[in-house]
Amino acid sequence: MSYEYPLTINRILSRTLHRRSRSEIVYRENRYDWTKFHERVRRLASGLGSIGVKKGVRVGVMDFDTHRYLEAYYAVPMMGAVLHTVNIRLPPEHLAYTVDNAEDEVLLVRDDFLPGVAKMLPSLRKVKTVVTMSDSGSAPSFSFVGTNTKYYEDILSEADPAYEFDEPDENDMATLFYTSGTTGFPKGVWFTHRQVVLHSMSSLVGFTLSPREHSLQAGDVIMPVVPFFHVHCWGIPYDAGFLGSKFVLVGKYDPANILELVRTENVTFSAMVPSILNMIVNLPNVTEYKDTLARWKITVGGAALPRGLAQKAHALGIRVMSGYGLSETAPVLTLATPTETHTGMNETELLEKVLLKTGLPIPLVEIRVVDAEMKDVPRDSSTPGEIVVRAPWLTREYYKDQEKTNTLWKGGWLHTGDMAVIDEEGFVTIVDRLRDAIRSGSEWISSVLLEDYLSRHPAVSEAAVIGMKSEAWGERPLAIVSAKGAVTEQDLLTYMSSFVEQGKLAKFWLPDKFVVVNEPLPKTSTGKIDKKPLREKYRNLGAIAPGSMKS
Amino acid sequence: MSYEYPLTINRILSRTLHRRSRSEIVYRENRYDWTKFHERVRRLASGLGSIGVKKGVRVGVMDFDTHRYLEAYYAVPMMGAVLHTVNIRLPPEHLAYTVDNAEDEVLLVRDDFLPGVAKMLPSLRKVKTVVTMSDSGSAPSFSFVGTNTKYYEDILSEADPAYEFDEPDENDMATLFYTSGTTGFPKGVWFTHRQVVLHSMSSLVGFTLSPREHSLQAGDVIMPVVPFFHVHCWGIPYDAGFLGSKFVLVGKYDPANILELVRTENVTFSAMVPSILNMIVNLPNVTEYKDTLARWKITVGGAALPRGLAQKAHALGIRVMSGYGLSETAPVLTLATPTETHTGMNETELLEKVLLKTGLPIPLVEIRVVDAEMKDVPRDSSTPGEIVVRAPWLTREYYKDQEKTNTLWKGGWLHTGDMAVIDEEGFVTIVDRLRDAIRSGSEWISSVLLEDYLSRHPAVSEAAVIGMKSEAWGERPLAIVSAKGAVTEQDLLTYMSSFVEQGKLAKFWLPDKFVVVNEPLPKTSTGKIDKKPLREKYRNLGAIAPGSMKS
Repeated sequence: MSYEYPLTINRILSRTLHRRSRSEIVYRENRYDWTKFHERVRRLASGLGSIGVKKGVRVGVMDFDTHRYLEAYYAVPMMGAVLHTVNIRLPPEHLAYTVDNAEDEVLLVRDDFLPGVAKMLPSLRKVKTVVTMSDSGSAPSFSFVGTNTKYYEDILSEADPAYEFDEPDENDMATLFYTSGTTGFPKGVWFTHRQVVLHSMSSLVGFTLSPREHSLQAGDVIMPVVPFFHVHCWGIPYDAGFLGSKFVLVGKYDPANILELVRTENVTFSAMVPSILNMIVNLPNVTEYKDTLARWKITVGGAALPRGLAQKAHALGIRVMSGYGLSETAPVLTLATPTETHTGMNETELLEKVLLKTGLPIPLVEIRVVDAEMKDVPRDSSTPGEIVVRAPWLTREYYKDQEKTNTLWKGGWLHTGDMAVIDEEGFVTIVDRLRDAIRSGSEWISSVLLEDYLSRHPAVSEAAVIGMKSEAWGERPLAIVSAKGAVTEQDLLTYMSSFVEQGKLAKFWLPDKFVVVNEPLPKTSTGKIDKKPLREKYRNLGAIAPGSMKS
Repeated sequence: MSYEYPLTINRILSRTLHRRSRSEIVYRENRYDWTKFHERVRRLASGLGSIGVKKGVRVGVMDFDTHRYLEAYYAVPMMGAVLHTVNIRLPPEHLAYTVDNAEDEVLLVRDDFLPGVAKMLPSLRKVKTVVTMSDSGSAPSFSFVGTNTKYYEDILSEADPAYEFDEPDENDMATLFYTSGTTGFPKGVWFTHRQVVLHSMSSLVGFTLSPREHSLQAGDVIMPVVPFFHVHCWGIPYDAGFLGSKFVLVGKYDPANILELVRTENVTFSAMVPSILNMIVNLPNVTEYKDTLARWKITVGGAALPRGLAQKAHALGIRVMSGYGLSETAPVLTLATPTETHTGMNETELLEKVLLKTGLPIPLVEIRVVDAEMKDVPRDSSTPGEIVVRAPWLTREYYKDQEKTNTLWKGGWLHTGDMAVIDEEGFVTIVDRLRDAIRSGSEWISSVLLEDYLSRHPAVSEAAVIGMKSEAWGERPLAIVSAKGAVTEQDLLTYMSSFVEQGKLAKFWLPDKFVVVNEPLPKTSTGKIDKKPLREKYRNLGAIAPGSMKS
């Protein structure tokens, strides 16, 4: 009988283990190679089995980006259980909701989060066991009333290092996590083994399609700066398993430490959201890292990469490239990979023409930009439409929410809620989140484009543009700017007007008002600028300031 | 409802068509881009539909490597029909057997092969229509008694350019072809859509794992020199669809023309068997192509790459790398990709340590080297065992042959019949085909290793070592050498004895006899040295030459 080979996470390491990759997995003082990693993965599965984890059981993890989290990324799904990557940045009520909604029976919890979990435990109806984790090297002295407590390293040392996995079906649920919307409780999305495997394979082929000086390849030292609870850390922990690369774990995020790790561990590839990159390039001693920055490739996603930030990173020697995806899409859909059309362009041109764009679909992704009737918009770089997609790794549903699932999958295409334009060659550029676009009269104004230009002003650290209520127009743009130098509202208006004169912005796109603040803008749990509190605070500013500067 | 995305050949072009790759597909004076290619693929499917091809119908193709063959590679499986890549080098009786066994209903036949098909037609019970093809630009004036005849370009011009494919299931049979064994009729092997897609994706990730200066990447101009009837041309026509690369088709093989095409079309990547490479590097004017050769990467497979040949290619500036696989395995199993252990090695060292080896498994391939009891042999670079494998793209069976299938899949692993050793790092090196190894007493002697050393002698063009009957030992090695200079049996014995003195060969491995011939050695239909006629002619030489030189 032939052997029917399933696409499971169990198989990702096949080549890496066969060749006994000596590349290290590094978290603080913990260093071991992929063979030792696999032994610890087997021990973890064996240990979890001994406390009742089996096929289908949900296991939640609450940790920073550590080697233990990486072990759980493999061990939990490989034994047929479900890895719930708990979003530790959620407000406690929301976090407890996700653990309860996921029906987690076991929680792996870093000591930092044990007091919080203790408070939540009464509302976590299914949780039977808490496995504690710590960087201290010994078990946290913490116990729960009515819930078993085990120490992670004890579980591993008591376990069977030769544990044999009972392989799951490729269509079994492997991972589950929650994506916070603008309203209500977070929504659960989940992925099968097959989806996780195909997502990584296609991402790796997608990177192949880019020049090596920008993209992830074998030989790279990988250090993602994407929380492990955020969409499989963009799949990078699984990509690294395929490649067998050296893999550096950041732990809790601290920009100065991140940069120092890049230097000391010879990191060559990272991925992160723009706000983290912004913090790094604005570190006071960043120019002392010239050689380090010159070998650092960064794929930026999670939010549009502002031109000003990209230029600053580029000037420091970092090679940045955009990627795009959602929690619902596992996440990668596109990479801003140059094609044969761009051969011979210098880095500056490439940044403008390619690397800043949302990009081209990776293999097997079918992407369309459509109007409200699901008709493709023209490839004219200017008509916006919604991005809808098909791929082998899109979530089948919002967990336990048929209604939202129906909206997500309306017409058999996954609706991203992102507004984009498409150019003749097929490059997609996001103009706005549907909900972030500002509706002025019957026209859409792109907050992203305005933010992009604002962020290039030398005195501006960050910018957010929101819709302000307007009796005349429904909504009008309002800019909130975090300043790092002296700048007035009038300076910003003059500055932005210059882009109108250059024909780069429509006149009616000019914000009616500029609010200058001297602290960082609020962020979501995933590090993006959080417009929700900004809207709450400022959206009625138009009403109380009738003499606004509409021009 | 979410969309369940199948892994079908239909989806390979998704990215390439989205971005409207302008890269050309070139065969002689035919040049068009991937968008035009897709239109012709739709036309071909539409046209085949009009002559009765539908889901499950077998379509045989008999052609050299042309753009029309490439169109059939996509159109036939994409419409749910089965592509039978007929081995045109088989003896007519065997060829007719394969067409009949495959139950081909339609044959796409190049004019060169029409007379042969006419003779065979009476025994091709299922064939209803012959579609004729020609490089002449007009329909061949050829008609069959009792069988419909259509001209390929007529079918396309009458067809619907907007034909919509009714997508097959990913587990439907997509391709079928026959592999010639040493005895009896060829055996059929077949592959599903899913298998073809995963094979290409994994091959591309496998290439990612190698330095760009050796491996296939985006931006390469691809020209396979592997017959399209031979194991999906190693998957390269599908790899190229994923990449959207410029793709050059060779037509009928002629070494001088191949080299000239590399020059004129700026080819950077090819794949071929060693005997073709041997012809190319021995072309009298090869050194006139210095710049061309310097940008040419070649993956060699189908037979072990002899060291002498690799060194010669290397000296000319060509970067060669080995790959390994079988008809039964779609075919790629391993690539000789360097790892981080080999960083900093120069090309000569790399050739010796990596590129000449059979290599490392590509992702998702599980490879073992086992003894007769299916126990793994030690990783000591010297204990030979059989290579057995699992991967998502191995043939499920020999078509209509349960008995041979049972042998192939004994114990749930596919048995390659190849003898190999494995080193500490996991690199596999083929020692011999099981049937080519020479059994001297209770010991195995590797014919491949002996051929490798013989091929490095300056007067030797090709060498084959076979087992010669021996009363004392069962078998003893006999070397047959095709000379390109003056060389005697005694010269060769002295030369080979030097390797014994250097400890590179066991003394008992020295051939008992050397036969020097002045013509090329016989080849199989796939261009490998055919040992069958050599065995028939020479295997009893031991018996009639009792005074042989056993030392």
